[in-house]
Amino acid sequence: MLEINKADDRLARGLAVMEKLDRGAGQRMLDALNEVAPDLARYTVEFPFGDIYSRGTLSLRDREIATIAALVTLGFALPQLKVHLHCGLNVGCTRAELVEVIMQMAVYAGFPAALNAALAAQDVFKERDAAGIAN
Amino acid sequence: MLEINKADDRLARGLAVMEKLDRGAGQRMLDALNEVAPDLARYTVEFPFGDIYSRGTLSLRDREIATIAALVTLGFALPQLKVHLHCGLNVGCTRAELVEVIMQMAVYAGFPAALNAALAAQDVFKERDAAGIAN
Amino acid sequence: MLEINKADDRLARGLAVMEKLDRGAGQRMLDALNEVAPDLARYTVEFPFGDIYSRGTLSLRDREIATIAALVTLGFALPQLKVHLHCGLNVGCTRAELVEVIMQMAVYAGFPAALNAALAAQDVFKERDAAGIAN
Amino acid sequence: MLEINKADDRLARGLAVMEKLDRGAGQRMLDALNEVAPDLARYTVEFPFGDIYSRGTLSLRDREIATIAALVTLGFALPQLKVHLHCGLNVGCTRAELVEVIMQMAVYAGFPAALNAALAAQDVFKERDAAGIAN
Amino acid sequence: MLEINKADDRLARGLAVMEKLDRGAGQRMLDALNEVAPDLARYTVEFPFGDIYSRGTLSLRDREIATIAALVTLGFALPQLKVHLHCGLNVGCTRAELVEVIMQMAVYAGFPAALNAALAAQDVFKERDAAGIAN
Amino acid sequence: MLEINKADDRLARGLAVMEKLDRGAGQRMLDALNEVAPDLARYTVEFPFGDIYSRGTLSLRDREIATIAALVTLGFALPQLKVHLHCGLNVGCTRAELVEVIMQMAVYAGFPAALNAALAAQDVFKERDAAGIAN
Repeated sequence: MLEINKADDRLARGLAVMEKLDRGAGQRMLDALNEVAPDLARYTVEFPFGDIYSRGTLSLRDREIATIAALVTLGFALPQLKVHLHCGLNVGCTRAELVEVIMQMAVYAGFPAALNAALAAQDVFKERDAAGIAN
Repeated sequence: MLEINKADDRLARGLAVMEKLDRGAGQRMLDALNEVAPDLARYTVEFPFGDIYSRGTLSLRDREIATIAALVTLGFALPQLKVHLHCGLNVGCTRAELVEVIMQMAVYAGFPAALNAALAAQDVFKERDAAGIAN
Repeated sequence: MLEINKADDRLARGLAVMEKLDRGAGQRMLDALNEVAPDLARYTVEFPFGDIYSRGTLSLRDREIATIAALVTLGFALPQLKVHLHCGLNVGCTRAELVEVIMQMAVYAGFPAALNAALAAQDVFKERDAAGIAN
Repeated sequence: MLEINKADDRLARGLAVMEKLDRGAGQRMLDALNEVAPDLARYTVEFPFGDIYSRGTLSLRDREIATIAALVTLGFALPQLKVHLHCGLNVGCTRAELVEVIMQMAVYAGFPAALNAALAAQDVFKERDAAGIAN
Repeated sequence: MLEINKADDRLARGLAVMEKLDRGAGQRMLDALNEVAPDLARYTVEFPFGDIYSRGTLSLRDREIATIAALVTLGFALPQLKVHLHCGLNVGCTRAELVEVIMQMAVYAGFPAALNAALAAQDVFKERDAAGIAN
Repeated sequence: MLEINKADDRLARGLAVMEKLDRGAGQRMLDALNEVAPDLARYTVEFPFGDIYSRGTLSLRDREIATIAALVTLGFALPQLKVHLHCGLNVGCTRAELVEVIMQMAVYAGFPAALNAALAAQDVFKERDAAGIAN
């Protein structure tokens, strides 16, 4: 289990930005990988979130638009896409905007990638409706 | 050669949005493909730009962030990436912001994709410097 | 819900070609996306089917061979692959020919892509057997 | 250097089918790889051409349509795409048909993949024009 | 059903190396594809295992490290990844080493590919624990 | 320009492991990106090399086998592939072993990826011959 000490700036900063993106997401990821690859879990907090997302220069909304575009393009990353659709909505994107990013990916990654992503978005929107989340 | 009549709304609308993104870009693309695949050139104006980029909902700046993220992720699309780096700068992104999008792709598409894209950005920035373009 | 008026040529033409490829497929796709991304559904009818598949030059059988090759190569597009395996059989390909296309993709996209596609084909063939479809 | 003896059925069969696809192509590939990876060159004759392309069931024209679709989709395989555009033309596809396959890939692999492929096709057509090849 | 005669050297050699990698794996693969694509099953034994894995030059442990890296990178090949994680453990890799290969792929293929692979590894390790396999 | 202070453990550790892999490679990469994306250059030292390659558990030879497999599979990463072919040779792989990894990728990533990689290896071997490097 990870213990965070004060010197562990990147980890703490990463968890803080993950908390802004989606409450509890950092801990859920750490827990999911804790048994098989705890160091990969730690790196996932430290580098993407502690280093990259924490840089400023782009808003978290800008960053989620870029990430969602990338995850749709990869095609095989639907679990990560669902996580980041939640994050995007949590940092100020509307559902319509995220569907718009997905539609635009039909141009660059092809229609199959966009169609699978749209169905993933539908799942996310239903999860949020079921949880009583407004946007 | 394409002749645009008034009924051709999608084509006209696509060329207009391409003109906002990068002056002359639509015509350059039509010219480049005119001999081998003029219909593909027309579709490239009509669907990506006439349909998608013209929709509103997202700003052109948002759309370029998404597109640049996708093109870095594809890995093989450096010519298109260069075009859209120009477009991004023309619709209000700063150089620092576009480099930031590219760096973020190291997380999702891996470091080789991000490194090749950073070198493409360097080429674009030098082209703009040489042309005396401020941003 | 989409309403098709007479001016909507591309949409009508797309639905007509989808109907030739697989009875009811156009409507099923429109329904599946109607809630989350109805415009993406409409574009999927208009551009791939209303523009591209309707062009002539290649037979629908040729087009399905190309599409199945592409979907096997993408690797992540098994739902779309299953749809187009049905389409290919409906427009004159034999089961043996489609398995042949899949096997050939081992050369270009690697064995994992081909093996996953072969198992998808097996599912499709069983669905057709269960529905009493001869080929 | 490869020596072909009579027992070497797959190699001989592969070279024969390559000769039908493009005169001298088999030997050019063997020569190109002879220094660095002669066994990979031999496998490339034996498995793709000696095993797969020699099977019948699909015509060589069908096989080239599938291969060209796959190579466009991969995105990074422009050298192989050029070789197979020549092959496709040599076994009965028209230039218009191959451009049609490439355009169709905009749907499945995205516009950047299709646009890069169209420019590769333009190179191939110019090579053939320069060599006085009619189709 | 495949019948192996003495002349069928590549097939026999392939099955023998598959047996070393994972007892019964060759037969399971042949069985799974026997109905839909028995020739693809045979090629999968002959070329990857009968030709490539049988070459020497690299140890089977080296080969599994390379294969696991490739399968993580493809992203869509989790079923094959699970098979080869078993193989890697059976030919002398430790669990920690295979997790290490997966973590390294975060660098080259991105974090989503590595994270999905880590969860696949967790499944494999649990299967082995349940079967009372020590490593 | 990067200044390395004592607290910068990951950067120093990364540069040290890069120096073992290929003398001067770290500095060349920092220099190449210094103008356009110096922070990406620093992350490339810190995370892949300072964090991952420095972990132990796998030898540097094992890591280069995994990396080369991944880079061949990506298909678009020939510049990085050349760098890591040098690294692989520098940490104990033979040329024959690296060609063997490349050939094996024909199985997983397809023949085009393997063939392009083999030609890249030929370039690397010629560079080393020209520089009088024995292996």
